[in-house]
Amino acid sequence: MKLYSYYRSSAAFRVRIALNLKGLAYETVPIDLRAKGGGEQFGEAFRAVNPQMRVPVLELDSGDVLLQSLAIIDYLDETWPEPPLQPADPLTRARVRAVALIIATDIHPLNNTGPQRYLARTLGHDQAAIDAWVANWIGAGFEAIERLITPGPYAFGDAVTLADVCLVPQLANARRIDMALDRFPKILAAEAACLALPAFAQARPEVQPDAP
Amino acid sequence: MKLYSYYRSSAAFRVRIALNLKGLAYETVPIDLRAKGGGEQFGEAFRAVNPQMRVPVLELDSGDVLLQSLAIIDYLDETWPEPPLQPADPLTRARVRAVALIIATDIHPLNNTGPQRYLARTLGHDQAAIDAWVANWIGAGFEAIERLITPGPYAFGDAVTLADVCLVPQLANARRIDMALDRFPKILAAEAACLALPAFAQARPEVQPDAP
Repeated sequence: MKLYSYYRSSAAFRVRIALNLKGLAYETVPIDLRAKGGGEQFGEAFRAVNPQMRVPVLELDSGDVLLQSLAIIDYLDETWPEPPLQPADPLTRARVRAVALIIATDIHPLNNTGPQRYLARTLGHDQAAIDAWVANWIGAGFEAIERLITPGPYAFGDAVTLADVCLVPQLANARRIDMALDRFPKILAAEAACLALPAFAQARPEVQPDAP
Repeated sequence: MKLYSYYRSSAAFRVRIALNLKGLAYETVPIDLRAKGGGEQFGEAFRAVNPQMRVPVLELDSGDVLLQSLAIIDYLDETWPEPPLQPADPLTRARVRAVALIIATDIHPLNNTGPQRYLARTLGHDQAAIDAWVANWIGAGFEAIERLITPGPYAFGDAVTLADVCLVPQLANARRIDMALDRFPKILAAEAACLALPAFAQARPEVQPDAP
């Protein structure tokens, strides 16, 4: 498999964790999302791979391509069920998914490179205003998540779930803007437990082949 | 079941469609997201129901509450499997989910009431600038979706899927800002096919009990 990835993309980070948890080998195809002028991200070759022109994209050995991190992770979980990333009970599954979706819908998309670019270039805001915007959505989402997750070690107890797979990359983004996080002790405890696992540690941005 | 809903919320609209498709009866508990001063949305009573203080929330007959529209819909689909909202084949499922997630992650959260309020009150933008922001994210997402969906009648062929459940409410939001949509013929055809079904028609904002 080939993973179109960018070391700093937290959505790609989620998929790297899931691939590692499932023990699946993959080749990284780096797409530089911060290239001047857009670079290959907005070129016709990559648009033919992903009409949305984003990472992550997972290219299967069959040549089929999958996009959107949560859709890719669900595919991996359905195709390689061990270890499962969601609990068996539908109600607990729904709770795990709700936490993953708070990150994937109400935090991360607002803070992605596209909106940051729009805030800077089209709306004329400086980096301080953009960092405050980013911190606002992380703060609001984490306040809800801190109330929704259960005592550790992981976000939903003794097994790693999709909630952890989304939380750890989002924390890396929060640290990038030096956000104070001590009001989220359950979230921080889950992160520490996860980062002790090689599947998470080896998916970190700073150890990716395209990291500077 | 009780659905905490707001007639204009496109995320609540998705859940209303899913409940109708499954033939499940529910009671609507309206939460006015546009109330002056925030109203009950930000009150302690609703925060105890949903720490994220958003709709939709589905309260089951057991008293358990579910949040995040896609997590609620997956729960409904797992608990009441007929008719299925996702194809059986994992690869096609992943494609359906990717389209649903483009809407649920990269279009809707950017255009939600929270970010619109932040753009207006904290960043000082007028309604024209906010409408342009909204149109930008709908346009970018729909351009990708137009390339990803298949010939109709529905977004993925002969059966309604989660992609349609997300598309129709997003189109209602696009129409609210009078956005030109004729460059998206496949999307418009799927919408027309869906709105011919009572499950979609009866979930529309204008026929909800809290519509003005």
